[in-house]
Amino acid sequence: MSLGSTVFVLISAILVLLMTPGLAFFYGGLVSKKNVVNTMFLVFLMTGMVALMWILFGYGFSFVGNGAFIGDFKHFFLNGIDLNSLQPTKIPTGVYMLFQMMFAIITPGLFIGAIVGRTKLKFILLFIFIWSIVVYYPMVHMVWSTTGFLAKMGTLDFAGGTVIHINAGVTAFVLAKLIGKRLNYGKKVQAYSVPLVLIGTTLLWIGWYGFNAGSALAINNIAMQAAVTTTVATAASMMTWFGLDTFFNRKPSLMGVCTGTLCGLVGITPAAGYVTVAGAFWIGIIATIASYCFVNYIKPRIQLDDTLDAFGCHGVSGMVGSVATGLFATKLANPTIANNGLFYGGGLHQVLIQLGATIFTVVFVAVAAFAIAKLVGMITPMRASRQEEEEGMDLSEHSEVVDDAVHIK
Amino acid sequence: MSLGSTVFVLISAILVLLMTPGLAFFYGGLVSKKNVVNTMFLVFLMTGMVALMWILFGYGFSFVGNGAFIGDFKHFFLNGIDLNSLQPTKIPTGVYMLFQMMFAIITPGLFIGAIVGRTKLKFILLFIFIWSIVVYYPMVHMVWSTTGFLAKMGTLDFAGGTVIHINAGVTAFVLAKLIGKRLNYGKKVQAYSVPLVLIGTTLLWIGWYGFNAGSALAINNIAMQAAVTTTVATAASMMTWFGLDTFFNRKPSLMGVCTGTLCGLVGITPAAGYVTVAGAFWIGIIATIASYCFVNYIKPRIQLDDTLDAFGCHGVSGMVGSVATGLFATKLANPTIANNGLFYGGGLHQVLIQLGATIFTVVFVAVAAFAIAKLVGMITPMRASRQEEEEGMDLSEHSEVVDDAVHIK
Amino acid sequence: MSLGSTVFVLISAILVLLMTPGLAFFYGGLVSKKNVVNTMFLVFLMTGMVALMWILFGYGFSFVGNGAFIGDFKHFFLNGIDLNSLQPTKIPTGVYMLFQMMFAIITPGLFIGAIVGRTKLKFILLFIFIWSIVVYYPMVHMVWSTTGFLAKMGTLDFAGGTVIHINAGVTAFVLAKLIGKRLNYGKKVQAYSVPLVLIGTTLLWIGWYGFNAGSALAINNIAMQAAVTTTVATAASMMTWFGLDTFFNRKPSLMGVCTGTLCGLVGITPAAGYVTVAGAFWIGIIATIASYCFVNYIKPRIQLDDTLDAFGCHGVSGMVGSVATGLFATKLANPTIANNGLFYGGGLHQVLIQLGATIFTVVFVAVAAFAIAKLVGMITPMRASRQEEEEGMDLSEHSEVVDDAVHIK
Repeated sequence: MSLGSTVFVLISAILVLLMTPGLAFFYGGLVSKKNVVNTMFLVFLMTGMVALMWILFGYGFSFVGNGAFIGDFKHFFLNGIDLNSLQPTKIPTGVYMLFQMMFAIITPGLFIGAIVGRTKLKFILLFIFIWSIVVYYPMVHMVWSTTGFLAKMGTLDFAGGTVIHINAGVTAFVLAKLIGKRLNYGKKVQAYSVPLVLIGTTLLWIGWYGFNAGSALAINNIAMQAAVTTTVATAASMMTWFGLDTFFNRKPSLMGVCTGTLCGLVGITPAAGYVTVAGAFWIGIIATIASYCFVNYIKPRIQLDDTLDAFGCHGVSGMVGSVATGLFATKLANPTIANNGLFYGGGLHQVLIQLGATIFTVVFVAVAAFAIAKLVGMITPMRASRQEEEEGMDLSEHSEVVDDAVHIK
Repeated sequence: MSLGSTVFVLISAILVLLMTPGLAFFYGGLVSKKNVVNTMFLVFLMTGMVALMWILFGYGFSFVGNGAFIGDFKHFFLNGIDLNSLQPTKIPTGVYMLFQMMFAIITPGLFIGAIVGRTKLKFILLFIFIWSIVVYYPMVHMVWSTTGFLAKMGTLDFAGGTVIHINAGVTAFVLAKLIGKRLNYGKKVQAYSVPLVLIGTTLLWIGWYGFNAGSALAINNIAMQAAVTTTVATAASMMTWFGLDTFFNRKPSLMGVCTGTLCGLVGITPAAGYVTVAGAFWIGIIATIASYCFVNYIKPRIQLDDTLDAFGCHGVSGMVGSVATGLFATKLANPTIANNGLFYGGGLHQVLIQLGATIFTVVFVAVAAFAIAKLVGMITPMRASRQEEEEGMDLSEHSEVVDDAVHIK
Repeated sequence: MSLGSTVFVLISAILVLLMTPGLAFFYGGLVSKKNVVNTMFLVFLMTGMVALMWILFGYGFSFVGNGAFIGDFKHFFLNGIDLNSLQPTKIPTGVYMLFQMMFAIITPGLFIGAIVGRTKLKFILLFIFIWSIVVYYPMVHMVWSTTGFLAKMGTLDFAGGTVIHINAGVTAFVLAKLIGKRLNYGKKVQAYSVPLVLIGTTLLWIGWYGFNAGSALAINNIAMQAAVTTTVATAASMMTWFGLDTFFNRKPSLMGVCTGTLCGLVGITPAAGYVTVAGAFWIGIIATIASYCFVNYIKPRIQLDDTLDAFGCHGVSGMVGSVATGLFATKLANPTIANNGLFYGGGLHQVLIQLGATIFTVVFVAVAAFAIAKLVGMITPMRASRQEEEEGMDLSEHSEVVDDAVHIK
């Protein structure tokens, strides 16, 4: 066992776990006061529900076995898996299993942001149960298992551009369209708490070092590189959103800066261990511009009530990052990759692979998410009644009031 | 020095420190707005007060020397202790001392939750000063020092089921009974802030990886196992509370899910490094059912105003976990233990030891806490006056107002 | 590469990054509700702005090259710097660069606390841009580069007493005096949220272990010593402020205890790796008494509107700690230092060096900060208009409202 790498990946797993409550605070701070508990509840519950599914069958489905599309179905309750055995980077399988669990937890948490304030708890949980099996575990297997077909194709996805962000973003898009707009769509809603949004952003960013650098699965120069590129992309994206906000709205907002921060983190995720500081800088900027344009100009036109910009941030910046990995990847940053990207003399080869993997992910996830949602919608209603929605999901689903303050009507 | 283990235990110490403010937020979010500052103040102050006591004499009393009941009285201000010397797991004594300090800090913080809103600051601090010397240091020495009598008896307590949770829970019970019910006992109080409760839960959970995995005192397979079992038990307990809440109350609450999370963490604490994934799963479920029943059905009957469920959560789940360690402990998970538990072919041997240690802890702590409380009560009044309690402890003890919002009456 | 040390310093960098949002919460909780967004925005934006500057030229200016006052101007965008090369403690340069970046981020964040609620965003950002180049990078180079003139003089500054705290404190003093008092100066303002202040204090303290212990740049006995002394000084300072508050105000406040916590952390920063447990204990106490006296008795007399006590805490405790390092430093704690302090038989030698470095820092920073502020003030106005200030900076600079609660007028 490599002691250093084991400490590093175990701490990284803990950091990635921290991201899910971080996301609960980010989303909880953005909604209106009558939906805060429900929003936080749904996201936080993933840490229990998805973790149990992972132990019961998810890890086996995702990482064990030699299939091209999905893993083995026989490791119920981690049966037959030796947690003490070592992975190629000399960390125990138990630590690796735990690290990967945290990714499975946060991904459904992300798309919950698109449908809060109007969707029934039961529908969401049942959807996530099936979606994990039909969409998430196969995506993981295809991209990160050595025998997965996207991996064999040569797809570069360092820490989850396709598996996590495009996946969650596209699912968010499909669900938001199917469930429809909130009743008060278009009216400006005062956020429950900007400080809570910043607390969430902070925990997400901090946890993201576990996400990206930890994805080296060892403490080495690649982990260092991923930590550096993550920082550079995030700083660039934060300042880009700040600049765009100042230029187009005349006044920069803290919520804007927080969103910008996330776009950079999302954008660099697939590229983190493959690009240089300069590559990270440009990816941060491009991803943010794309998300900014989508959220401010395209989203209103297509009447998409992606309530907390799960697609606008994770989907759009995820796609940009995934394709940009084919532009900026370089052996200078990571000698283990097979091809340089377009800007480093590798020609179109890697860009086309990245584009192919991105398109495959979009199509596969869109079709599957649509089918699952329709199916689950036949079992239990998707949408809260008008009365429940007006009363707020906190009361209708939890009989719980978020705090004892008097709120602005 | 093992660099990997030293990093791991030092980071673990920092994570355990994080739990005490986490507890302050958990408790502070649950009380009514007039007692938030006082509640957070008391818990947070432990990080200063108990830390200083630890340096002055606590570490020596707890860990140095060969007594069966308590350590040496001669290491005032760590005098004569070489912080650079190595512990058996090759970590410096200074890191070990710091790691153990954090446990001493959080334990009194736990029982504060039973008596908030009506107890005088001076009484609590004086009680904790004496209780640390008479109850906490001896408990540590008896269980975790090699010559301690419970250790010699063969008690398994991986990270503090007896020392921390049963201890704090029983003290909470005694204090709540002695101090009596709040004036508004029985009336439903709107929690100050559910998001603050979730922030606290998050920090507690994250910190608990330091608590449980760090208790291996090295980075090795036992630490990995403890991290995995902690996660599994917590996920199981969270979903159990969610299920019970849904079944009996028809609607699951976020505060319930947070409480469930803590019950799993408490329950697995004594067992974390000794059980398998399956053992952790069942311990999480059983501990949560026990705490759920106590809090919802037994507590109201015995008219116990354990205000924030310090006994209901830490006492009850702690006892379940402590005894269940005798059922589920297995050499499969940890080859260093002497006996398998009942369910792994070890017969009743370990169960009886665990039961004995649990009963001893309950009796010893109950008697000692009662005597100390009575003694301190003769020096300074336990309970705030009716007027102080109605006004709220924030104003009467701190002249401080928690925020500038208008609150619901 | 030392795996253990690399993990340790990389995690330390992440912990130090966490301090800046921590500071945003600490400051954001203290101000009145109309300035919370602006306060948090300014502090948080440093994580983007200063990080980018660091990559673009700051690291080169600060750490590369053999000058006595400033580094090299040729490493634009880290050009020519091999991030994989090893530092003397066998950690990659990329990790070292990232660790030092986090110090550059938080330092300007500290002095923002002195001028919130009345200063124009544009002025602050432009000031920080120039100040980083003219004041911060040279300070770093003079103290921490091997060829820096204060380093050559023998100055001991373990983790940033001069570079960070005195520097930020003096800049805060100069800016507060130049910008002048708030319109409502002298009126008691209800803090926006005491829990937010405690969240900030928690993140600052936790992050400070990265700051102080991480400054060993390796996992070794010095890092252990720094973690222990940081804890001891902080506990002592917390209890000192608690005692002073109780004695002089009759009631201890949570905000007071939080401020005390920070004073101890600031005071021990320059000394952390050089003093014993006893030294740390006394430094914590002395620093806190000095800051307590300044904030409560001197500040009102000199009519300094150092709004959130950036000078009172960081400047005063920083100076105390810096000089006290010359009193308490000892080869018992750190065999690598050249001279013992006064109390350990080293005579006045080290005290005078520390005093010299402290005075130099105060004078250099005061003059430079004054000149930069005057210069920037000629380009863009320092101060918000009366109307903007009364309306609050959240609306006037960001058009953003902090939450949806009804607030006390």
